[in-house]
Amino acid sequence: MSRVVKLAVIPGDGIGPEVIAEAEKVLEAAAAGSGVRFDKTRFSLGAGRFLDTGDTLTADDLAAIKDHDAILLGAVGGVPGDPRLKNANIERGMLLKLRFELDHYVNLRPSKLYPGVPGPLAAPGDIDFVVVREGTEGPYVGNGGSIRTGTPHEVANETSVNTAFGVERVVRYAFDLAERRRRKLTLVHKTNVLVHAGGIWKRLVDEVALEHPDVTVDYVHVDAATIYLVTNPSRFDVIVTDNLFGDILTDLAGAVTGGIGLAASGNINPDGAFPSMFEPVHGSAPDIAGQQKADPTAAILSVSLLLDHLGLQDEARRVTTAVEEDLAARGSDAGATRTTTQVGDAIVARLQA
Amino acid sequence: MSRVVKLAVIPGDGIGPEVIAEAEKVLEAAAAGSGVRFDKTRFSLGAGRFLDTGDTLTADDLAAIKDHDAILLGAVGGVPGDPRLKNANIERGMLLKLRFELDHYVNLRPSKLYPGVPGPLAAPGDIDFVVVREGTEGPYVGNGGSIRTGTPHEVANETSVNTAFGVERVVRYAFDLAERRRRKLTLVHKTNVLVHAGGIWKRLVDEVALEHPDVTVDYVHVDAATIYLVTNPSRFDVIVTDNLFGDILTDLAGAVTGGIGLAASGNINPDGAFPSMFEPVHGSAPDIAGQQKADPTAAILSVSLLLDHLGLQDEARRVTTAVEEDLAARGSDAGATRTTTQVGDAIVARLQA
Ligand SMILES: CC(C)[C@H](C(=O)O)[C@@H](O)C(=O)O
Ligand SMILES: CC(C)[C@H](C(=O)O)[C@@H](O)C(=O)O
Repeated sequence: MSRVVKLAVIPGDGIGPEVIAEAEKVLEAAAAGSGVRFDKTRFSLGAGRFLDTGDTLTADDLAAIKDHDAILLGAVGGVPGDPRLKNANIERGMLLKLRFELDHYVNLRPSKLYPGVPGPLAAPGDIDFVVVREGTEGPYVGNGGSIRTGTPHEVANETSVNTAFGVERVVRYAFDLAERRRRKLTLVHKTNVLVHAGGIWKRLVDEVALEHPDVTVDYVHVDAATIYLVTNPSRFDVIVTDNLFGDILTDLAGAVTGGIGLAASGNINPDGAFPSMFEPVHGSAPDIAGQQKADPTAAILSVSLLLDHLGLQDEARRVTTAVEEDLAARGSDAGATRTTTQVGDAIVARLQA
Repeated sequence: MSRVVKLAVIPGDGIGPEVIAEAEKVLEAAAAGSGVRFDKTRFSLGAGRFLDTGDTLTADDLAAIKDHDAILLGAVGGVPGDPRLKNANIERGMLLKLRFELDHYVNLRPSKLYPGVPGPLAAPGDIDFVVVREGTEGPYVGNGGSIRTGTPHEVANETSVNTAFGVERVVRYAFDLAERRRRKLTLVHKTNVLVHAGGIWKRLVDEVALEHPDVTVDYVHVDAATIYLVTNPSRFDVIVTDNLFGDILTDLAGAVTGGIGLAASGNINPDGAFPSMFEPVHGSAPDIAGQQKADPTAAILSVSLLLDHLGLQDEARRVTTAVEEDLAARGSDAGATRTTTQVGDAIVARLQA
């Protein structure tokens, strides 16, 4: 009984290839004996590819990627200020294009403070929540433009587009997730100011809530949510929010749980119509690239999300446990000075033990 | 030689009246001997007024307020979930209406961690920066709407409107402020995603920067900015940003500097065409209203910003110093258990000493 999973691997730029190398080792070690074999295709995408060819993501790339079961992504982005990238927008042209074209409407970002991990908060408490960030609409659609561009009379508009179709499906996903967790769902938005976008989110959360009487629902303005994240993060279980607020909250959440070197994410198409994509929340960090300084943990935890998505719950849990043990051991060993490969090897060793 | 300043006082809802009572005492004490006399008019505005009369801010209110030199505001907002307020939007109908009608294009929010003040960060470092938040455009304009409202086919759009006129003037203010401080200015936006709104901000910061070669300019994405606020807030001197990002960052900044019970703000019309308005960043906190539990410090520091705006720099500084001394003393005395009035009295006593 063997199953072949077609996996698209996009190492990307900067530290991407280094952390993905470790993530791949962990993936193989975790899946060994599960009967699942990964048939991998490597895609060269990101700033490097753009500099070589002028392309971000071609129609052929996209078609080829779609013909996979899942995607593992490192990080993309060139050196800040590189003049050759001045007119490129790798983020919109590649990363967001993948999320939109592959209908990744759930951007799943768990935040957990693991035992032994140092963070910036003096008294963090128990932190264990998941942000369900909408991934295909809202302020990220790129809708808008400017008139009299470059003149003193320029007007630049940027429109957030929110549909009942798009909001309802991600809200449903968040409620289902809350049912499997501590049964608390918090909508984060800014309904008192963004009345149009906020209104549709509030309405659909209220409507879907009626089908989940056992889930406690509350609402927090995005500004207040940032306060809670540093003063009382334990109050959150599942947060559902739009694309932009989710972006902001998850970077902050990553910081308070020990840094985005540990924060994993899944860009998920729950319908299975397109491959889902798993990536660390961190960027390509070109300043430390190629130096074996990057922490591969976020990429490795993304592998756990990938395994879970493929239905390999036991294997997913084994990866998380191995990471947890590695993190707990860092306090005592020379954790901070291990190379990227050493961290990966240590986690693989725990999986094989 | 005496000068009369016409001051509109809007105590507002919840804890507003309590903290404003202390702020007024401090204002009188600080201005005593300066030759300035305050001629005050009290305006009843907020949720309470709405419940009594159905009005938020009438044309008459607005005309009367305009006929003042400055405004001191407590906080507005009713009890969350009050069904009688369901169709009221006090925030948009009153607070934002004042900011927009009085062309408060600079929303000035200093963040400073005062000695002796406990905060949530384990190693906060020196925190002393000012957020210059745009106050009259961006995502706050209320532009947008929805079609097929309330149906499964609803589409709700919310448009951020950014003009060269509006962005340039607040950017100029921020650079001028940076010149009087540590000469560092950080633009916070999300230019890689919000390309239209981000483009105009980036262009105008770059243009105005040419006139300030001695100011170091950098750019940080809003998501990364929240990370810096909890891991390295000392990196900031002056932050300039749009209305929504400014809202989010200043709540977080308030939290890391000891809570929004200490965060003051000025809604400023630097042209002097309309009265500027000074208010604590915190809300009306109806749950603790009338119990003498609210910390009036944010309101009192707003008085310092008001005095500074009126050209009374020495008086402004005396208020800040008195607050600083009071905060430093809190560690040792029973600071946390003092009433609102006791805190106000203590600061007045220091001013009179
Ligand atoms: C790189 C950028 C486009 C991206 C985003 O804003 O979504 C990143 O910040 C993230 O959170 O994955
Ligand atoms: C009450 C609300 C409209 C307001 C804002 O969003 O500006 C508040 O959060 C603030 O920061 O002053």
